[in-house]
Amino acid sequence: MNSIIRSAFGGGRGLWRPALNAVRAMSASGGPTPPFTTLSISQPASHVTHVELHRPEKRNAMNQAFWSEMIDCFNQIAEDPECRVVVFSGAGKLFTAGIDLMDMAGGLLRPDADDTARISWKVRQTISKYQETFSVIEKCPKPVVVAVHGACVGAGVDLITACDIRLCTQDAWFQVKEVDIGLAADVGTLQRLPKVIGSGSLVNELALTARKMYSDEAKSSGLVSRVFPDKETLMAGAMEVAGEIASRSPVAVQGTKINLIFSRDHSVKEGLDFAAMWNMSMLQTDDLMKSAQAALEKKSIKQVVFSKL
Amino acid sequence: MNSIIRSAFGGGRGLWRPALNAVRAMSASGGPTPPFTTLSISQPASHVTHVELHRPEKRNAMNQAFWSEMIDCFNQIAEDPECRVVVFSGAGKLFTAGIDLMDMAGGLLRPDADDTARISWKVRQTISKYQETFSVIEKCPKPVVVAVHGACVGAGVDLITACDIRLCTQDAWFQVKEVDIGLAADVGTLQRLPKVIGSGSLVNELALTARKMYSDEAKSSGLVSRVFPDKETLMAGAMEVAGEIASRSPVAVQGTKINLIFSRDHSVKEGLDFAAMWNMSMLQTDDLMKSAQAALEKKSIKQVVFSKL
Amino acid sequence: MNSIIRSAFGGGRGLWRPALNAVRAMSASGGPTPPFTTLSISQPASHVTHVELHRPEKRNAMNQAFWSEMIDCFNQIAEDPECRVVVFSGAGKLFTAGIDLMDMAGGLLRPDADDTARISWKVRQTISKYQETFSVIEKCPKPVVVAVHGACVGAGVDLITACDIRLCTQDAWFQVKEVDIGLAADVGTLQRLPKVIGSGSLVNELALTARKMYSDEAKSSGLVSRVFPDKETLMAGAMEVAGEIASRSPVAVQGTKINLIFSRDHSVKEGLDFAAMWNMSMLQTDDLMKSAQAALEKKSIKQVVFSKL
Amino acid sequence: MNSIIRSAFGGGRGLWRPALNAVRAMSASGGPTPPFTTLSISQPASHVTHVELHRPEKRNAMNQAFWSEMIDCFNQIAEDPECRVVVFSGAGKLFTAGIDLMDMAGGLLRPDADDTARISWKVRQTISKYQETFSVIEKCPKPVVVAVHGACVGAGVDLITACDIRLCTQDAWFQVKEVDIGLAADVGTLQRLPKVIGSGSLVNELALTARKMYSDEAKSSGLVSRVFPDKETLMAGAMEVAGEIASRSPVAVQGTKINLIFSRDHSVKEGLDFAAMWNMSMLQTDDLMKSAQAALEKKSIKQVVFSKL
Amino acid sequence: MNSIIRSAFGGGRGLWRPALNAVRAMSASGGPTPPFTTLSISQPASHVTHVELHRPEKRNAMNQAFWSEMIDCFNQIAEDPECRVVVFSGAGKLFTAGIDLMDMAGGLLRPDADDTARISWKVRQTISKYQETFSVIEKCPKPVVVAVHGACVGAGVDLITACDIRLCTQDAWFQVKEVDIGLAADVGTLQRLPKVIGSGSLVNELALTARKMYSDEAKSSGLVSRVFPDKETLMAGAMEVAGEIASRSPVAVQGTKINLIFSRDHSVKEGLDFAAMWNMSMLQTDDLMKSAQAALEKKSIKQVVFSKL
Amino acid sequence: MNSIIRSAFGGGRGLWRPALNAVRAMSASGGPTPPFTTLSISQPASHVTHVELHRPEKRNAMNQAFWSEMIDCFNQIAEDPECRVVVFSGAGKLFTAGIDLMDMAGGLLRPDADDTARISWKVRQTISKYQETFSVIEKCPKPVVVAVHGACVGAGVDLITACDIRLCTQDAWFQVKEVDIGLAADVGTLQRLPKVIGSGSLVNELALTARKMYSDEAKSSGLVSRVFPDKETLMAGAMEVAGEIASRSPVAVQGTKINLIFSRDHSVKEGLDFAAMWNMSMLQTDDLMKSAQAALEKKSIKQVVFSKL
Repeated sequence: MNSIIRSAFGGGRGLWRPALNAVRAMSASGGPTPPFTTLSISQPASHVTHVELHRPEKRNAMNQAFWSEMIDCFNQIAEDPECRVVVFSGAGKLFTAGIDLMDMAGGLLRPDADDTARISWKVRQTISKYQETFSVIEKCPKPVVVAVHGACVGAGVDLITACDIRLCTQDAWFQVKEVDIGLAADVGTLQRLPKVIGSGSLVNELALTARKMYSDEAKSSGLVSRVFPDKETLMAGAMEVAGEIASRSPVAVQGTKINLIFSRDHSVKEGLDFAAMWNMSMLQTDDLMKSAQAALEKKSIKQVVFSKL
Repeated sequence: MNSIIRSAFGGGRGLWRPALNAVRAMSASGGPTPPFTTLSISQPASHVTHVELHRPEKRNAMNQAFWSEMIDCFNQIAEDPECRVVVFSGAGKLFTAGIDLMDMAGGLLRPDADDTARISWKVRQTISKYQETFSVIEKCPKPVVVAVHGACVGAGVDLITACDIRLCTQDAWFQVKEVDIGLAADVGTLQRLPKVIGSGSLVNELALTARKMYSDEAKSSGLVSRVFPDKETLMAGAMEVAGEIASRSPVAVQGTKINLIFSRDHSVKEGLDFAAMWNMSMLQTDDLMKSAQAALEKKSIKQVVFSKL
Repeated sequence: MNSIIRSAFGGGRGLWRPALNAVRAMSASGGPTPPFTTLSISQPASHVTHVELHRPEKRNAMNQAFWSEMIDCFNQIAEDPECRVVVFSGAGKLFTAGIDLMDMAGGLLRPDADDTARISWKVRQTISKYQETFSVIEKCPKPVVVAVHGACVGAGVDLITACDIRLCTQDAWFQVKEVDIGLAADVGTLQRLPKVIGSGSLVNELALTARKMYSDEAKSSGLVSRVFPDKETLMAGAMEVAGEIASRSPVAVQGTKINLIFSRDHSVKEGLDFAAMWNMSMLQTDDLMKSAQAALEKKSIKQVVFSKL
Repeated sequence: MNSIIRSAFGGGRGLWRPALNAVRAMSASGGPTPPFTTLSISQPASHVTHVELHRPEKRNAMNQAFWSEMIDCFNQIAEDPECRVVVFSGAGKLFTAGIDLMDMAGGLLRPDADDTARISWKVRQTISKYQETFSVIEKCPKPVVVAVHGACVGAGVDLITACDIRLCTQDAWFQVKEVDIGLAADVGTLQRLPKVIGSGSLVNELALTARKMYSDEAKSSGLVSRVFPDKETLMAGAMEVAGEIASRSPVAVQGTKINLIFSRDHSVKEGLDFAAMWNMSMLQTDDLMKSAQAALEKKSIKQVVFSKL
Repeated sequence: MNSIIRSAFGGGRGLWRPALNAVRAMSASGGPTPPFTTLSISQPASHVTHVELHRPEKRNAMNQAFWSEMIDCFNQIAEDPECRVVVFSGAGKLFTAGIDLMDMAGGLLRPDADDTARISWKVRQTISKYQETFSVIEKCPKPVVVAVHGACVGAGVDLITACDIRLCTQDAWFQVKEVDIGLAADVGTLQRLPKVIGSGSLVNELALTARKMYSDEAKSSGLVSRVFPDKETLMAGAMEVAGEIASRSPVAVQGTKINLIFSRDHSVKEGLDFAAMWNMSMLQTDDLMKSAQAALEKKSIKQVVFSKL
Repeated sequence: MNSIIRSAFGGGRGLWRPALNAVRAMSASGGPTPPFTTLSISQPASHVTHVELHRPEKRNAMNQAFWSEMIDCFNQIAEDPECRVVVFSGAGKLFTAGIDLMDMAGGLLRPDADDTARISWKVRQTISKYQETFSVIEKCPKPVVVAVHGACVGAGVDLITACDIRLCTQDAWFQVKEVDIGLAADVGTLQRLPKVIGSGSLVNELALTARKMYSDEAKSSGLVSRVFPDKETLMAGAMEVAGEIASRSPVAVQGTKINLIFSRDHSVKEGLDFAAMWNMSMLQTDDLMKSAQAALEKKSIKQVVFSKL
């Protein structure tokens, strides 16, 4: 619980102050946050953690380091009581070009083993590990707001479909690239895209033809919930949404995320039973009284101080 | 089966005539229908039951009486052979302000018990009971058309997501309010909203930030299927949709609702098996021949008389 | 494996040349392809099979022959290594008027048996058989692009919801007709429509009122992913989409379809486990290297030659 | 919560003293306990409720009254804080001869309706209601120990498979009777018997041939967990088991029943997740400390006083 | 529906009289019944079909012909209205030595294809086809009583776990052989054995060590429900069980099998819902009245004549 | 993959030689294997790993160290290519007395947090972590043979139900202890016991009354598959079973375990689909040919050399 992230800034509990202010943090981050080499972590506002995919010179392509750093990063965030919401974005000109083919090729495709069964065994283990890279986003109870600008290609789509709220710029485009390189997407897109978009026909078309989808279609299809003119307004918008979330009871917010994800994968009846069991203890929080009182007194929720979770 | 609703009007089987005509029934209902204190029940047209949430002076806030009256009301409607479709709306200036915090606070949150386990046990029972208030809408095999005007807040969203068809006025707005008062929604919104709207990102944003959604976004996201200029046209539109449904075979209509709800929560294969088993007897209805004959003779379905179900 | 389709054209393995070119094949098909009496089969482009519902004089109404010919046709397509994608359309003025009531009535509704239980037993068998008519589309691992012009009524909606990609003309309209003839739809619409469209309210409204939905609403609701001005542009558009799919690795494309359909009916976790198991062998394909190399060399995927699957 | 059962004895909260002692209560119950006409209710020991099927002159055949009285009875027991465990047995010479065909025939089999579909609709409602008669045993969180002597026929098997612990006398025999009267069992046996017995072959043989199974096979197959020489020792044994259960923490005991039933119908993973969520509040009970302390002090659990649940 | 089986004996509908009596039919069958080459079909008693695995000179090893003949055979039996129950046994000295390695090796293990992915694709199709060989037993609504004498090895265990009732001789032994030849069993044993035997530890031990299990352990573990001294008494016993089943209402018997199999794979709640839906039409059978009347009149069920199903 | 276990013995890949021979290794292990403090690890025979619970002076009670060491231990075993099967047993006079109440009490029951909701949140995390302690046994693809002597109490039952094969001594007894200390078992017993034992009544009786079950009932109920006279013969028996497993193809053995566990939690149809997908690559192993050839040549499987997995 004494997290690497926090120690990276030499800070004590609750001291995270890597950036002077959110704007600077987001417009001019200086590079990855050690020990990470592909991710830059900052705390642009109270209770908000900003994770930036940071390999701009490589178009934020996902190399081997990235796949394991994501797991460490989100596992730490999940346990960090200071963090109540995450903003995820990409450094540089575009969100991400997807997998870094050059860096990745060897290991995954040609593991060293004595027969086809044994190669298959290892390939399966590798895929499972890579799936975890994005599943940690979903397992982290803190909501993740992803802000996409420019291109979001291949594994980038796998990544954003595991996030909770998707925002993008006018110039953003999305491409389910996997069929173009000879495989069925196996780290999230085929599993999650149909559950976040309302049109089965569109999902199939994107996945089977690898055509680009631009921001207007991303909005009308429901992939993103808002489109912004440019990256600056996008980041401001993402921060605003994150701020709204951060100001509310973490018991309410994280319980909401957990229930929404459970409901997606279960029947309504199962979802209701889960909610009743969840809330049999979660309603016994002081946050309820604090929030209700603020509401009755017409005070802003931002003035209420909630205990850490 | 000798229903309270019917007896409330002193009527015999099939006699329900509380209102002279639909228009009056809907524009000027005089108050709750005894024994109900929060619901006004009328029969504006043949086979159509109108249920109106009727606490206009309290912005239709849901008090303790409401939560149990809904269960009685819809259980009776489910068994009333005269009713084939329900229109649900709110009296006064807006649809509903949601839960009546003043009236509800005590019981739910602080049950009297000897330790945390025992308090939790009771809270779970209470939540389950409250969930039933809206689940009865879904269990009732008659389709429920909900007409929303003005505000639909908090538990109001839980309510409408349990209805089958959602219509609203231009000035309607919707707000998933629960995070604002410190809890994860547990009576339907988190379970049903993701299954009635096509955009996962939007669902999450609404539930995590409690922001308002207006009618245009409600339409484009698919929450409602039609928007009307004002309450009068809304109610006329709701009545028209209800009339279309009421004129069709109740065996066909109610079987359709039952199959749609089953399909939502099961795989396509399971849904098909269910439909085959359902229709092995339901196709043995005279309604099939009556309907087919009307179709062949180009007669309006409204002229066909179907037996009660 | 020595398929009827192929032998119908007297061709050897890989010789299918029924049509001189795609345009002619699609604008002027001369009639059903023996032994079929309701379907016309052609190969308008490399690896693309065109299946045309061909009873134009009967508005492509689905008679008894159709229901079994579809099963034979798609089972053969599933095993035909030359075919990588299917385009499905209707001959003549409209896509289909749905079930051919005149031709179908007897058998289904009044099977000869000694009591209600035994009649029900037979009805259930019949429905299961009819369900298979459209389920074969889904079981066939090759993607099916359906092109709808004019009317798509009743069982036509059951059919298209089982296809992967839906396109239509400006003048197309869709009607879930079953309640109008006294039954709950039991061959696919109630099971699949809610899973291909994002608005629960709209699905319910369509299924419960049998109202027509026009192409603009079909597009905004996500039923179709593109709308074309007329049938000619529609068919060209369908061919283009099909061409994109046909040019990609069949291992990638068919694996994508299989994973998408599995994901629709399972939780995200189950879908990910399935994908890992699927790809443990499928990644060991030469197509991966061929595709990746083409991508790196900036060559068109259309120039890559993939082995048959 | 002001239960009929308790008021039947004129007692206040916690005063239930219908019988002088357990032995007498069970050997000489004088008849049904009003308002029940088929069930005799007593409290033979502290926290133990004894429900006796009491139509000895009719071989405890299940008439129309029985089917609804069971529901009332177990719903009340579920809410009675004094009761922690139930013993269920039959009065007179045998446990039960099953359904009372004479009394039941009319209603179920020939409901009055206009066509086959409508008859089927009503039959389905009736079956669901009858299923509830035994499902209430399972829904009641207090464990139910059933003691079978002599014959247990037809619906008797449906009943006992819904109980938690099954004990019997040497002379007991069991018969899945339904195929003998022309139907597939539909109120529990076919659903629960395979889940309480370890041999699929035996379950199928019993259900398909309606042969009798005697106590030794009932024991070796696991249907019952103990066999006693005669009814007197059986009832003493049932009381002893019930006493063991009644003396333990009701939070622990009822949580155990709820978790066992959940686990039966779910995967191990789902069962573990459920248990973690259940115990996140249930471990916060004083019973834990009281029980642990008694264990450490080598005191009998029977000396510990637990709060009501 | 004009079944091969029946025509093989030149008989008309209902005339099947291949054997003078059951004893002779079963002790001295002259060989496979054309067109089958591995199965001998006879009708030893009214409504009873006897299927004998008939390659005694090869120890009833399962060759390529067997795998497809089983599918044809049971699909025909499923539709044959004369048949109400099946007895399955092996000709010669033992039940079956399992798969015929010599005959099978080539095709399955080394399909001809261009890369590992394509080989895997074909292997999966082949396994699915082989699985169907035993799944047809389960899909056939008529109960199958299997009588095992001597050895039952490898695929023999896959076969018998798909049957409904298992009987054996004292000298019978069972062996899950697959790990001995380097594979995980994939045509039924690992899927069904844990659901027909009560001991997880035993199932695992048998499957992981390939040790033999003898008849006494087969009985005590519940794999078989009865053990007979020798093959003659076994066959007489199997015929008696089959006779009991054949004499009962086919609506009741086949409904019972269908419900039992559904229940095995679903929760109790789902099983009950299925049963209610199944019986809403199936209770409307004349068999119910015929059976009930026979019961009331104390007549043997064998005297009742039921319509065909 | 350079495992702690192996390095603990200073050995290189494949060199594990901590004990001169199996007998000595198992009768006289000198204490825990560093870095473990509660587990002693040895390799008594080729490909066999012996894990011994080693706190004999504390009756092998499970302290805080144990709960995390188990996770490390089995995760390493899962990845150790030398290990093909595990034998698990307890050092000293008995298998285990269950949880070490003294050592555990603090942390779990009274986490430090600001309100009931936050305490519950932490309790849930803790339970999940403890569940993992036994779930790792199940996730490890190598079969685990557990050998129980003397007492197996409380969490000991949770542990052994997660193992694959259970053996015990004559003097062994088992006790589901949790209700005695005021809680519902939440780390495996209630979830797995019903799936490894055939008698629902017995499972419930054990869990609800905490009564002891002795070895004879453990055998007849199927909890264990064999009983041995004393610990020495038990360990020899466990080693023999392990030796049988270790000598077979690891592809076959581990695939069998994986399929058996999948099947336990899924329908037969799902289990068959999983097996087909699993074996599409796993049948492409050289082990198949090696094993088959040995079988044809009547050579012992123990002579065959399989590649590592």
